[in-house]
Amino acid sequence: MTRLHVPVPLRWSDLDAYQHVNNVAMFRLLEDARITAFWRHEEAAAGEAWPTAILDTGPHATSHTFVAGQQIEYLRPLGFSRTPVRVEMWIGAMGGASLEVCYEVYDGAPGGFPRTGPASGEAPYVKAATTIVVVDAASGKPRRITDDERAAWAEFAGEPVAFRKRG
Amino acid sequence: MTRLHVPVPLRWSDLDAYQHVNNVAMFRLLEDARITAFWRHEEAAAGEAWPTAILDTGPHATSHTFVAGQQIEYLRPLGFSRTPVRVEMWIGAMGGASLEVCYEVYDGAPGGFPRTGPASGEAPYVKAATTIVVVDAASGKPRRITDDERAAWAEFAGEPVAFRKRG
Amino acid sequence: MTRLHVPVPLRWSDLDAYQHVNNVAMFRLLEDARITAFWRHEEAAAGEAWPTAILDTGPHATSHTFVAGQQIEYLRPLGFSRTPVRVEMWIGAMGGASLEVCYEVYDGAPGGFPRTGPASGEAPYVKAATTIVVVDAASGKPRRITDDERAAWAEFAGEPVAFRKRG
Amino acid sequence: MTRLHVPVPLRWSDLDAYQHVNNVAMFRLLEDARITAFWRHEEAAAGEAWPTAILDTGPHATSHTFVAGQQIEYLRPLGFSRTPVRVEMWIGAMGGASLEVCYEVYDGAPGGFPRTGPASGEAPYVKAATTIVVVDAASGKPRRITDDERAAWAEFAGEPVAFRKRG
Repeated sequence: MTRLHVPVPLRWSDLDAYQHVNNVAMFRLLEDARITAFWRHEEAAAGEAWPTAILDTGPHATSHTFVAGQQIEYLRPLGFSRTPVRVEMWIGAMGGASLEVCYEVYDGAPGGFPRTGPASGEAPYVKAATTIVVVDAASGKPRRITDDERAAWAEFAGEPVAFRKRG
Repeated sequence: MTRLHVPVPLRWSDLDAYQHVNNVAMFRLLEDARITAFWRHEEAAAGEAWPTAILDTGPHATSHTFVAGQQIEYLRPLGFSRTPVRVEMWIGAMGGASLEVCYEVYDGAPGGFPRTGPASGEAPYVKAATTIVVVDAASGKPRRITDDERAAWAEFAGEPVAFRKRG
Repeated sequence: MTRLHVPVPLRWSDLDAYQHVNNVAMFRLLEDARITAFWRHEEAAAGEAWPTAILDTGPHATSHTFVAGQQIEYLRPLGFSRTPVRVEMWIGAMGGASLEVCYEVYDGAPGGFPRTGPASGEAPYVKAATTIVVVDAASGKPRRITDDERAAWAEFAGEPVAFRKRG
Repeated sequence: MTRLHVPVPLRWSDLDAYQHVNNVAMFRLLEDARITAFWRHEEAAAGEAWPTAILDTGPHATSHTFVAGQQIEYLRPLGFSRTPVRVEMWIGAMGGASLEVCYEVYDGAPGGFPRTGPASGEAPYVKAATTIVVVDAASGKPRRITDDERAAWAEFAGEPVAFRKRG
């Protein structure tokens, strides 16, 4: 399975009183990774495109997405670094109008890293999953994932994140 | 089963571009409800205590808590209101050093509402659960939930939130 | 001079590592006070209107506002409380399309306080001012403050906040 | 005058409903630039030091800083980009225990830019200034800026930002 490897810079304000990335701030890092990798940006047009970045974005977008649910496990505390973390992402499930984006968060590397690659063998800081519904911007209703989208995302399909049993 | 009914004021900055409470901001509302209901505050000493508010807080606390995991489902979009929402909370599971706090979010009421009560029969905006580990502040290690804590929380034990199957 | 006295609840996440309201978070409190007092809400229609709340709000608003500038002085550290703080506000200057909203932040009171009143004689935690430009939503251009707006705001005109000299 | 040129990545969540960086979020960008340039980090020890990064940081720091005041003017709306913005910084005033950090925010450049350089001739998005007091961590009291700090910062002294007259 190939994963997307997205660099996400931390901010000082992500830290809590224990100098660790706060549990809610972690969702902002995952959001940023997800938007970087799935939304089409102007930069993409200039040749910097992520292979999966084919959802419209911005005020005149024809589609947008709705977050239907999220789950996260915090496995190790993540401290501050000027080196962006590496958020590894893949697609754990794809339905008619929805997909589950899966994440693991690792240390980055000072010199950067390739945009795609295999699963890391290290212990992640965090495991998470977000269920996203693709919505038609005009009607506000869910719409089917297109063939182009499926084709762009197929390479990054994998097993859903396994979480511990709750309770 | 008795639930805690915690009023949580919204902020304008909780809204996203669609004028709904943002998916990440929702975790801030839940955090605020949880801290209100479980942490001991100076106000508590003045007779305003929540029945469950017996965890130490502040810079000289002997305990703190660590968030081990979270899960959420967004069922309906929540718009802005000056009336605080009602976060209903209960304890879905209690282990040696950990507990699962469960939440459902509902409309508040202009005149307020009692601090405890039965489960609402309405459709919630959000269902969520947070697994919390109680930690000894000096050692940084998990510590057993005390008999006093168990006694204060027992009344609010209930079935864990049922989430949809993922994927 | 009469001031608006706006209650603003704190959140635990407003605190920094020193258990004080963070310098950036303070602007969120001021924003919330400003929106409460100047924007028309549905609640207002039900008889809860602030006397100054006559700017349209929401997705179909005919006007919106643009923040052109801000200044703040942090005079004393503000710790956490479950009692909302009291943000006293007045209008320090009014131009053709712009106004300067002035603020001082004080402790609230457990039982609440009236919506308008004189200047407090206490030492504030914070002094601040925000310059706001009223914009026509359709054109995106500044528009003149209307006679109705001027009339609603005139009672709350006062001397601009005096800040220390910089440097 | 030489300025520090600090790259600061944007986040999608910095945007407001108009797809511009929110007025409060802008202070987070400035904070991040300031901490990058003035606080000593572990990375610095590995040879990546900013020339001005000599303030202790982290939980065992011997000093910390207190923000005494801030001022900002928003001159043009800043939209989203994957290319980090360039925050140009210099020191507009230095007292016994305090300094005024001045900022202008510009577009970045896809290939990056040197860490120091002259003032840009372009029109900035934002002008701002923050007054910082250096505090002894043990006593919590202001302490004198050391000779080493003065020496590290002298090269970046310049005229304070000129703001429009208020009101």
